[in-house]
Amino acid sequence: MMKSFGSKPLAFPTPTWVIGSYDADGKANVMTAAWGGIVSSEPPCIGVSLRESRHSYESILARGGFTISVPDAAHAREADYFGMASGRDRDKFAVSGLTPAKAEFVDAPYVAEFPMIIECRLIQSVELGIHIQLIGEIADVKVNEDVLNADGKPDMELVAPLIFAPGARTYHTVGKAIGKAFSLGKDLL
Amino acid sequence: MMKSFGSKPLAFPTPTWVIGSYDADGKANVMTAAWGGIVSSEPPCIGVSLRESRHSYESILARGGFTISVPDAAHAREADYFGMASGRDRDKFAVSGLTPAKAEFVDAPYVAEFPMIIECRLIQSVELGIHIQLIGEIADVKVNEDVLNADGKPDMELVAPLIFAPGARTYHTVGKAIGKAFSLGKDLL
Repeated sequence: MMKSFGSKPLAFPTPTWVIGSYDADGKANVMTAAWGGIVSSEPPCIGVSLRESRHSYESILARGGFTISVPDAAHAREADYFGMASGRDRDKFAVSGLTPAKAEFVDAPYVAEFPMIIECRLIQSVELGIHIQLIGEIADVKVNEDVLNADGKPDMELVAPLIFAPGARTYHTVGKAIGKAFSLGKDLL
Repeated sequence: MMKSFGSKPLAFPTPTWVIGSYDADGKANVMTAAWGGIVSSEPPCIGVSLRESRHSYESILARGGFTISVPDAAHAREADYFGMASGRDRDKFAVSGLTPAKAEFVDAPYVAEFPMIIECRLIQSVELGIHIQLIGEIADVKVNEDVLNADGKPDMELVAPLIFAPGARTYHTVGKAIGKAFSLGKDLL
Protein backbone atom coordinates (compact mmCIF):
# COMPACT_ATOMS: atom_id res chain seq x y z
CA MET A 1 0.00 0.00 0.00
CA MET A 2 1.17 3.53 -0.76
CA LYS A 3 0.77 6.24 1.88
CA SER A 4 0.14 9.78 0.68
CA PHE A 5 2.20 12.59 2.25
CA GLY A 6 0.55 15.45 0.36
CA SER A 7 2.21 18.48 -1.19
CA LYS A 8 5.63 18.42 0.53
CA PRO A 9 9.28 19.00 -0.44
CA LEU A 10 10.07 15.31 0.01
CA ALA A 11 12.27 13.29 -2.37
CA PHE A 12 15.24 10.94 -1.96
CA PRO A 13 18.16 11.43 -2.25
CA THR A 14 19.06 15.07 -1.68
CA PRO A 15 22.65 16.29 -1.34
CA THR A 16 24.21 18.04 1.64
CA TRP A 17 26.19 20.82 0.02
CA VAL A 18 28.16 23.53 1.77
CA ILE A 19 27.92 26.82 -0.13
CA GLY A 20 30.89 29.19 0.24
CA SER A 21 30.95 32.96 -0.29
CA TYR A 22 32.71 36.12 0.91
CA ASP A 23 30.48 38.67 2.60
CA ALA A 24 30.65 42.47 2.30
CA ASP A 25 33.39 42.56 4.98
CA GLY A 26 35.44 39.98 3.06
CA LYS A 27 34.73 37.32 5.69
CA ALA A 28 34.61 33.75 4.40
CA ASN A 29 31.20 32.24 5.09
CA VAL A 30 29.47 28.93 4.49
CA MET A 31 25.91 27.62 4.64
CA THR A 32 24.47 24.17 4.07
CA ALA A 33 21.86 23.49 1.39
CA ALA A 34 20.00 20.32 0.45
CA TRP A 35 17.87 21.86 -2.29
CA GLY A 36 20.18 21.56 -5.29
CA GLY A 37 21.42 19.51 -8.20
CA ILE A 38 23.15 19.53 -11.55
CA VAL A 39 20.85 21.27 -14.05
CA SER A 40 22.72 21.18 -17.36
CA SER A 41 25.60 19.38 -19.11
CA GLU A 42 26.59 21.98 -21.68
CA PRO A 43 27.35 24.53 -20.37
CA PRO A 44 27.83 22.53 -17.16
CA CYS A 45 25.57 24.16 -14.59
CA ILE A 46 24.45 23.44 -11.08
CA GLY A 47 21.58 24.96 -9.11
CA VAL A 48 21.24 25.61 -5.38
CA SER A 49 18.22 27.17 -3.72
CA LEU A 50 18.53 29.70 -0.91
CA ARG A 51 16.10 31.90 0.97
CA GLU A 52 16.59 35.56 0.16
CA SER A 53 16.99 36.31 3.87
CA ARG A 54 20.20 34.25 4.06
CA HIS A 55 23.43 36.14 4.68
CA SER A 56 24.99 34.14 1.82
CA TYR A 57 22.41 35.32 -0.68
CA GLU A 58 23.58 38.92 -1.00
CA SER A 59 27.23 37.82 -0.80
CA ILE A 60 26.85 35.54 -3.81
CA LEU A 61 25.01 38.19 -5.79
CA ALA A 62 27.62 40.83 -4.97
CA ARG A 63 30.64 38.69 -5.90
CA GLY A 64 28.97 36.82 -8.78
CA GLY A 65 30.14 33.40 -7.69
CA PHE A 66 30.06 30.69 -5.08
CA THR A 67 31.60 27.34 -4.29
CA ILE A 68 30.08 24.03 -3.32
CA SER A 69 32.19 22.01 -0.88
CA VAL A 70 30.93 18.44 -0.59
CA PRO A 71 31.32 17.25 3.00
CA ASP A 72 32.26 13.65 3.64
CA ALA A 73 30.47 11.66 6.34
CA ALA A 74 33.31 12.39 8.79
CA HIS A 75 32.30 16.08 8.71
CA ALA A 76 28.57 15.63 9.27
CA ARG A 77 28.72 17.58 12.54
CA GLU A 78 30.35 20.64 10.93
CA ALA A 79 28.03 20.49 7.89
CA ASP A 80 25.03 20.38 10.20
CA TYR A 81 26.32 23.35 12.17
CA PHE A 82 26.85 25.34 8.94
CA GLY A 83 23.13 24.91 8.24
CA MET A 84 21.99 26.20 11.62
CA ALA A 85 24.16 29.24 12.42
CA SER A 86 24.17 32.52 10.50
CA GLY A 87 27.36 34.12 9.19
CA ARG A 88 25.83 37.50 10.03
CA ASP A 89 26.85 37.21 13.65
CA ARG A 90 29.66 34.64 13.75
CA ASP A 91 32.63 33.20 11.90
CA LYS A 92 31.59 29.65 11.14
CA PHE A 93 35.04 28.66 9.87
CA ALA A 94 36.64 29.79 13.14
CA VAL A 95 34.03 28.04 15.29
CA SER A 96 34.28 24.75 13.38
CA GLY A 97 38.07 24.80 13.11
CA LEU A 98 37.86 24.17 9.35
CA THR A 99 39.98 26.10 6.86
CA PRO A 100 38.75 28.56 4.20
CA ALA A 101 40.73 28.35 0.93
CA LYS A 102 40.31 30.88 -1.87
CA ALA A 103 38.79 29.39 -5.03
CA GLU A 104 40.84 29.55 -8.21
CA PHE A 105 38.27 30.82 -10.71
CA VAL A 106 35.60 32.57 -8.64
CA ASP A 107 35.65 35.09 -5.84
CA ALA A 108 34.56 32.71 -3.08
CA PRO A 109 36.10 30.44 -0.43
CA TYR A 110 35.79 26.68 -0.06
CA VAL A 111 36.35 24.25 2.79
CA ALA A 112 39.91 22.96 2.39
CA GLU A 113 39.26 19.75 4.38
CA PHE A 114 36.35 18.54 2.17
CA PRO A 115 37.07 16.02 -0.65
CA MET A 116 35.17 17.59 -3.58
CA ILE A 117 34.87 21.28 -4.51
CA ILE A 118 32.79 22.84 -7.30
CA GLU A 119 33.55 26.44 -8.30
CA CYS A 120 30.54 28.23 -9.81
CA ARG A 121 30.00 31.49 -11.66
CA LEU A 122 26.51 32.84 -11.01
CA ILE A 123 24.70 33.09 -14.35
CA GLN A 124 20.99 33.08 -13.50
CA SER A 125 18.48 33.38 -10.64
CA VAL A 126 15.06 31.76 -10.69
CA GLU A 127 12.45 32.98 -8.19
CA LEU A 128 10.43 30.14 -6.71
CA GLY A 129 8.27 31.17 -3.78
CA ILE A 130 10.36 31.45 -0.62
CA HIS A 131 13.47 30.16 -2.36
CA ILE A 132 15.63 31.62 -5.11
CA GLN A 133 17.43 29.08 -7.25
CA LEU A 134 20.92 30.33 -8.02
CA ILE A 135 22.30 28.74 -11.15
CA GLY A 136 26.06 28.58 -11.42
CA GLU A 137 28.12 27.64 -14.42
CA ILE A 138 30.74 25.19 -13.22
CA ALA A 139 34.18 26.75 -13.70
CA ASP A 140 36.12 23.88 -12.14
CA VAL A 141 35.70 20.74 -10.07
CA LYS A 142 38.52 19.83 -7.68
CA VAL A 143 38.76 16.44 -6.02
CA ASN A 144 41.22 15.16 -3.44
CA GLU A 145 43.63 12.73 -5.12
CA ASP A 146 43.14 10.26 -2.26
CA VAL A 147 39.54 9.60 -3.34
CA LEU A 148 40.11 8.79 -7.02
CA ASN A 149 39.55 5.30 -8.45
CA ALA A 150 42.00 3.27 -10.56
CA ASP A 151 40.87 5.18 -13.70
CA GLY A 152 41.60 8.53 -12.05
CA LYS A 153 37.88 9.35 -11.63
CA PRO A 154 36.30 10.41 -8.32
CA ASP A 155 35.12 7.28 -6.51
CA MET A 156 31.81 7.97 -4.78
CA GLU A 157 32.44 5.45 -2.00
CA LEU A 158 35.78 7.13 -1.21
CA VAL A 159 34.41 10.68 -1.49
CA ALA A 160 31.70 9.45 0.91
CA PRO A 161 29.37 12.43 0.36
CA LEU A 162 26.81 13.12 3.04
CA ILE A 163 23.27 12.42 1.83
CA PHE A 164 20.21 14.06 3.38
CA ALA A 165 16.75 12.57 3.78
CA PRO A 166 14.01 15.23 3.98
CA GLY A 167 11.09 14.25 6.20
CA ALA A 168 13.02 12.02 8.63
CA ARG A 169 15.80 14.67 8.52
CA THR A 170 18.59 12.08 8.75
CA TYR A 171 22.08 12.18 7.23
CA HIS A 172 23.38 9.06 5.56
CA THR A 173 26.57 7.75 4.05
CA VAL A 174 26.66 6.47 0.50
CA GLY A 175 26.71 2.69 0.07
CA LYS A 176 28.45 0.24 -2.23
CA ALA A 177 28.69 0.58 -5.98
CA ILE A 178 26.18 -1.84 -7.49
CA GLY A 179 27.04 -1.48 -11.15
CA LYS A 180 27.85 0.76 -14.10
CA ALA A 181 25.36 3.11 -15.74
CA PHE A 182 24.67 2.59 -19.45
CA SER A 183 25.60 -1.06 -18.87
CA LEU A 184 23.43 -2.73 -16.18
CA GLY A 185 20.29 -2.49 -18.32
CA LYS A 186 21.84 -3.22 -21.72
CA ASP A 187 20.33 -6.69 -21.98
CA LEU A 188 16.87 -5.10 -22.16
CA LEU A 189 17.74 -2.98 -25.22
CA MET B 1 46.53 17.37 -3.11
CA MET B 2 43.47 18.40 -5.10
CA LYS B 3 43.17 17.36 -8.73
CA SER B 4 41.38 19.71 -11.10
CA PHE B 5 38.78 18.21 -13.46
CA GLY B 6 37.90 21.43 -15.26
CA SER B 7 34.48 22.68 -16.29
CA LYS B 8 32.41 19.46 -16.04
CA PRO B 9 28.95 18.45 -14.80
CA LEU B 10 30.45 16.55 -11.87
CA ALA B 11 29.06 16.63 -8.32
CA PHE B 12 28.13 14.00 -5.71
CA PRO B 13 25.54 12.82 -5.00
CA THR B 14 23.04 12.96 -7.87
CA PRO B 15 19.71 11.15 -7.84
CA THR B 16 18.51 8.49 -10.28
CA TRP B 17 14.95 9.52 -10.97
CA VAL B 18 12.54 7.91 -13.39
CA ILE B 19 10.34 10.53 -15.05
CA GLY B 20 6.87 9.35 -16.15
CA SER B 21 4.64 10.88 -18.82
CA TYR B 22 1.95 9.94 -21.35
CA ASP B 23 2.86 10.58 -24.98
CA ALA B 24 0.59 11.87 -27.76
CA ASP B 25 -0.72 8.32 -28.35
CA GLY B 26 -1.54 7.95 -24.65
CA LYS B 27 1.30 5.46 -24.16
CA ALA B 28 2.88 5.45 -20.71
CA ASN B 29 6.58 6.30 -21.00
CA VAL B 30 9.50 6.68 -18.62
CA MET B 31 13.01 8.09 -18.85
CA THR B 32 15.81 8.29 -16.30
CA ALA B 33 17.34 11.59 -15.20
CA ALA B 34 20.18 12.37 -12.81
CA TRP B 35 20.12 16.14 -13.28
CA GLY B 36 17.51 17.15 -10.73
CA GLY B 37 16.71 18.16 -7.19
CA ILE B 38 14.26 19.88 -4.89
CA VAL B 39 14.29 23.61 -5.69
CA SER B 40 11.82 25.19 -3.27
CA SER B 41 9.99 24.47 0.00
CA GLU B 42 6.96 26.75 -0.38
CA PRO B 43 5.45 26.08 -2.82
CA PRO B 44 7.19 22.70 -2.77
CA CYS B 45 8.89 22.38 -6.15
CA ILE B 46 11.30 19.99 -7.78
CA GLY B 47 13.36 20.44 -10.95
CA VAL B 48 14.48 17.88 -13.52
CA SER B 49 16.52 18.70 -16.59
CA LEU B 50 15.84 17.06 -19.97
CA ARG B 51 17.17 17.56 -23.47
CA GLU B 52 14.54 19.03 -25.76
CA SER B 53 15.05 16.12 -28.16
CA ARG B 54 13.72 13.63 -25.61
CA HIS B 55 10.39 11.98 -26.38
CA SER B 56 9.32 12.76 -22.80
CA TYR B 57 9.88 16.49 -23.24
CA GLU B 58 6.94 17.21 -25.54
CA SER B 59 4.75 14.74 -23.60
CA ILE B 60 5.29 16.63 -20.34
CA LEU B 61 4.65 19.99 -21.99
CA ALA B 62 1.46 18.72 -23.66
CA ARG B 63 -0.03 17.20 -20.49
CA GLY B 64 1.34 19.81 -18.06
CA GLY B 65 2.61 17.28 -15.56
CA PHE B 66 4.99 14.44 -14.81
CA THR B 67 5.85 11.99 -12.09
CA ILE B 68 9.13 11.03 -10.48
CA SER B 69 9.35 7.38 -9.49
CA VAL B 70 12.36 6.76 -7.22
CA PRO B 71 13.86 3.35 -8.04
CA ASP B 72 15.27 1.25 -5.25
CA ALA B 73 18.60 -0.50 -5.69
CA ALA B 74 16.80 -3.74 -6.60
CA HIS B 75 15.58 -2.03 -9.81
CA ALA B 76 18.92 -0.59 -10.96
CA ARG B 77 18.80 -2.65 -14.16
CA GLU B 78 15.36 -1.35 -15.19
CA ALA B 79 16.25 2.25 -14.24
CA ASP B 80 19.42 2.01 -16.33
CA TYR B 81 17.45 0.66 -19.29
CA PHE B 82 14.91 3.51 -19.00
CA GLY B 83 17.79 5.94 -19.51
CA MET B 84 19.11 4.29 -22.68
CA ALA B 85 16.05 3.39 -24.77
CA SER B 86 13.63 5.90 -26.34
CA GLY B 87 9.88 5.70 -25.85
CA ARG B 88 9.53 6.87 -29.45
CA ASP B 89 10.09 3.38 -30.79
CA ARG B 90 9.29 1.06 -27.91
CA ASP B 91 7.14 0.44 -24.86
CA LYS B 92 9.63 0.54 -22.00
CA PHE B 93 7.08 -0.62 -19.43
CA ALA B 94 6.27 -3.72 -21.51
CA VAL B 95 9.94 -4.54 -22.11
CA SER B 96 10.90 -4.16 -18.44
CA GLY B 97 7.85 -5.98 -17.10
CA LEU B 98 7.12 -3.09 -14.71
CA THR B 99 3.61 -1.70 -14.23
CA PRO B 100 2.38 1.80 -15.18
CA ALA B 101 -0.09 3.25 -12.65
CA LYS B 102 -2.04 6.46 -13.30
CA ALA B 103 -1.09 9.31 -10.98
CA GLU B 104 -3.82 10.76 -8.78
CA PHE B 105 -3.30 14.51 -9.27
CA VAL B 106 -1.48 14.85 -12.61
CA ASP B 107 -1.97 13.36 -16.07
CA ALA B 108 1.06 11.06 -15.98
CA PRO B 109 1.94 7.47 -15.09
CA TYR B 110 4.32 6.21 -12.42
CA VAL B 111 6.12 2.91 -11.81
CA ALA B 112 3.91 0.92 -9.42
CA GLU B 113 6.79 -1.24 -8.15
CA PHE B 114 8.98 1.69 -6.98
CA PRO B 115 8.86 2.76 -3.31
CA MET B 116 8.55 6.57 -3.62
CA ILE B 117 6.49 8.58 -6.13
CA ILE B 118 6.36 12.35 -6.59
CA GLU B 119 3.50 13.83 -8.63
CA CYS B 120 4.40 17.18 -10.24
CA ARG B 121 2.46 19.90 -12.02
CA LEU B 122 4.66 21.67 -14.55
CA ILE B 123 4.85 25.35 -13.58
CA GLN B 124 8.01 26.68 -15.23
CA SER B 125 10.76 25.86 -17.77
CA VAL B 126 14.28 27.24 -17.56
CA GLU B 127 16.44 27.08 -20.70
CA LEU B 128 20.04 26.14 -19.90
CA GLY B 129 22.09 25.29 -22.96
CA ILE B 130 21.34 21.77 -24.16
CA HIS B 131 19.07 21.08 -21.20
CA ILE B 132 15.71 22.51 -20.21
CA GLN B 133 14.97 22.44 -16.51
CA LEU B 134 11.32 21.56 -15.96
CA ILE B 135 10.10 22.80 -12.60
CA GLY B 136 7.18 20.95 -11.12
CA GLU B 137 5.10 21.93 -8.15
CA ILE B 138 4.78 18.82 -5.99
CA ALA B 139 1.10 17.82 -5.86
CA ASP B 140 1.64 14.71 -3.78
CA VAL B 141 4.33 12.34 -2.53
CA LYS B 142 3.41 8.68 -2.14
CA VAL B 143 5.59 6.21 -0.29
CA ASN B 144 5.18 2.47 0.18
CA GLU B 145 4.06 1.75 3.76
CA ASP B 146 6.71 -0.97 4.04
CA VAL B 147 9.53 1.61 3.96
CA LEU B 148 8.32 3.97 6.72
CA ASN B 149 10.16 4.34 10.04
CA ALA B 150 8.66 4.06 13.53
CA ASP B 151 7.51 7.71 13.30
CA GLY B 152 5.67 7.05 10.03
CA LYS B 153 8.25 8.97 7.96
CA PRO B 154 9.99 7.51 4.88
CA ASP B 155 13.18 5.78 6.02
CA MET B 156 15.95 6.42 3.47
CA GLU B 157 17.72 3.12 4.22
CA LEU B 158 14.47 1.22 3.57
CA VAL B 159 13.52 3.24 0.47
CA ALA B 160 17.08 2.43 -0.71
CA PRO B 161 17.11 5.03 -3.52
CA LEU B 162 19.60 4.50 -6.29
CA ILE B 163 22.34 7.15 -6.27
CA PHE B 164 24.33 8.07 -9.36
CA ALA B 165 27.98 9.16 -9.52
CA PRO B 166 28.73 11.28 -12.62
CA GLY B 167 32.26 10.81 -13.95
CA ALA B 168 32.74 7.19 -12.84
CA ARG B 169 29.11 6.56 -13.95
CA THR B 170 28.41 4.11 -11.14
CA TYR B 171 25.16 3.46 -9.29
CA HIS B 172 25.29 3.14 -5.53
CA THR B 173 23.01 2.20 -2.67
CA VAL B 174 22.46 4.57 0.23
CA GLY B 175 24.33 3.73 3.44
CA LYS B 176 23.54 3.87 7.13
CA ALA B 177 21.95 6.81 8.93
CA ILE B 178 24.71 8.60 10.80
CA GLY B 179 22.66 11.15 12.71
CA LYS B 180 19.87 13.69 12.77
CA ALA B 181 20.00 17.03 10.96
CA PHE B 182 19.62 20.17 13.10
CA SER B 183 21.04 18.12 15.96
CA LEU B 184 24.50 16.66 15.16
CA GLY B 185 26.13 20.10 15.06
CA LYS B 186 24.21 21.72 17.92
CA ASP B 187 27.17 21.69 20.31
CA LEU B 188 28.93 24.19 18.00
CA LEU B 189 26.13 26.75 18.23
